[in-house]
Amino acid sequence: MTTPHGVIETPMFMPVGTAATVKGLTPAQLQELGVRILLGNTYHLALRPGVEVVEAMGGLHRFMNWNGAILTDSGGYQVFSLAEQRKITDDSVVFRSHIDGALFELSPEKAVAIQERLGSDIAMCLDECPPSLGEEDEVREALRRTLLWARRCRDVQRKPDQALFAIVQGGLNPGWRVECAEALAAMDFPGYALGGFSVGEPTEQMLTVLAESTAPLPADKPRYLMGVGRPQDILEAVARGVDLFDCVLPTRNGRNAQAFTMAGPIKLRNSIYRLDPAPLDETCPCYTCRHFSRAYLHHLFRAEEMLGPILVSLHNVGFYLQFMAQIRSAIEEQRFDSFRAAHLARLGGNF
Amino acid sequence: MTTPHGVIETPMFMPVGTAATVKGLTPAQLQELGVRILLGNTYHLALRPGVEVVEAMGGLHRFMNWNGAILTDSGGYQVFSLAEQRKITDDSVVFRSHIDGALFELSPEKAVAIQERLGSDIAMCLDECPPSLGEEDEVREALRRTLLWARRCRDVQRKPDQALFAIVQGGLNPGWRVECAEALAAMDFPGYALGGFSVGEPTEQMLTVLAESTAPLPADKPRYLMGVGRPQDILEAVARGVDLFDCVLPTRNGRNAQAFTMAGPIKLRNSIYRLDPAPLDETCPCYTCRHFSRAYLHHLFRAEEMLGPILVSLHNVGFYLQFMAQIRSAIEEQRFDSFRAAHLARLGGNF
Repeated sequence: MTTPHGVIETPMFMPVGTAATVKGLTPAQLQELGVRILLGNTYHLALRPGVEVVEAMGGLHRFMNWNGAILTDSGGYQVFSLAEQRKITDDSVVFRSHIDGALFELSPEKAVAIQERLGSDIAMCLDECPPSLGEEDEVREALRRTLLWARRCRDVQRKPDQALFAIVQGGLNPGWRVECAEALAAMDFPGYALGGFSVGEPTEQMLTVLAESTAPLPADKPRYLMGVGRPQDILEAVARGVDLFDCVLPTRNGRNAQAFTMAGPIKLRNSIYRLDPAPLDETCPCYTCRHFSRAYLHHLFRAEEMLGPILVSLHNVGFYLQFMAQIRSAIEEQRFDSFRAAHLARLGGNF
Repeated sequence: MTTPHGVIETPMFMPVGTAATVKGLTPAQLQELGVRILLGNTYHLALRPGVEVVEAMGGLHRFMNWNGAILTDSGGYQVFSLAEQRKITDDSVVFRSHIDGALFELSPEKAVAIQERLGSDIAMCLDECPPSLGEEDEVREALRRTLLWARRCRDVQRKPDQALFAIVQGGLNPGWRVECAEALAAMDFPGYALGGFSVGEPTEQMLTVLAESTAPLPADKPRYLMGVGRPQDILEAVARGVDLFDCVLPTRNGRNAQAFTMAGPIKLRNSIYRLDPAPLDETCPCYTCRHFSRAYLHHLFRAEEMLGPILVSLHNVGFYLQFMAQIRSAIEEQRFDSFRAAHLARLGGNF
């Protein structure tokens, strides 16, 4: 996938940089880990510091000193999950900020304009994300509005160096997912996202519907599964044709003393690590694993020292990046099915 | 000053790494900033993770992955400021941990033994630190016990690659300070510290007594002013013969959104920085100043993002290191008096 800020091999994982920062990590650390593309959250940035600040400071890349690629979501998901006093019509959604109650309005046209001003490499269409496990008529209505808004986003999108991705909705109804994907594919976007997954439904159900959702999408355009997920979910989604992922898990778990490793998770507050001289993962080349023992990390979390969340977030982002690189190698070498089977058999849900 | 972990030019500032970490910064970042020596707090390390953990993990340097020098305090100051249910005799001080109430005993012999097990480059004698602005008889009694304990520390100290520094007490009484300094100098330590300052007394009074306290100490041994201080205090103390400093200000202020600069402090939460594209300090070569605007740092603190404390702590430690390098250059070039006068005239107490 080619962007104005570099070529990105897929499948790829995008660390989440909600408020113009990947929590706890410097851009230099991200670059050293091999991160090529980040996610920025339009809703959060529009509320704070405000798009006018980011624009005045030269755009999101310059503001946060990130020279790799950036994908911004449209804000739709947060409007439907975080904002208060939400009023939605076909024209727009009006809501109050969860931070200070300030009144905002987001329309397809405004979502595109904001993302153009942020200057991301990839922008997302405004979609309506129905409530998790919503009623049928809610899901159907959200699908209708998502298609309406996708066309309006496409029609106003002007920035030549920014790609606009559309979002497939349709809940857990495979027929509606196919209908939505086909309609969006007909509008010819440079990339497509799968939205409304990983919002409480069983994983098995997500995977079944996911396979149906990607089938109608053009094979030569990237597919992005929003907000997913655990390593095992990524393996299964790649098997179903997904190219891009984002998730807060590596940094959120990092702050909560949980490290991902190829041998399963490590919960660093556990006293079994008090005298453990081993690194998190003997085979991991990250800064944390090259230099620090589990005993030291255990101590940092017990003492509530900032360096604990920093070092484990760093390792976890590195883990995800290495995991994606292994997936890419397995695909290139035509052994992805056995790679996936071996990982799932060994670890199951126990990543 | 030569240590097993490198030669240290003086005057030098030591960032505080209380719990085997300088808050918010990686050893790699400290090294890049030019840090050569850190302070570790024996009281905190003995309580958590425990000296047996640090020792089992190969000593403090290896535990925290710091290849520069480390000075450990004796724990005395914290026993007298943090611990609970303290009982002191000439033999030892018995106290309860402020963390979990566990009972500990610290004697001169134990303080030396713990620091030998931590493996620091420089250990400190156990002293009695009288209460800030204490009564005359308390200060006098603490002086007597400090001298008694210094001799006992010296008598049990065995580690050939660890230097043991003595601590001058005596409150704000210049005569007692001189008496203490002379008695310790007669015991021939490889270095001397000035304790019990910066505990609430007026700066002018500290500086007057400080000059008296350093006079009896041998000129060819390092003098360390414990827990000091602000840049202007360091300038004045260097003028009075001090070589080493430690202070939590660069990291504590960094966490609280206050940056040190040669032009005075910057309080980053202030809304005047909302759209300020300048770095903290145009002339500063640190990572933060090379890559980030005040507007971005302002945003990070408003959004309560970890990267704010990280980046400003990094800059502040860098500021202190650069400031010490400027002092050393001024001394070498025999223009320290004018350097000091220019700084104090320009900034006064307004660093």
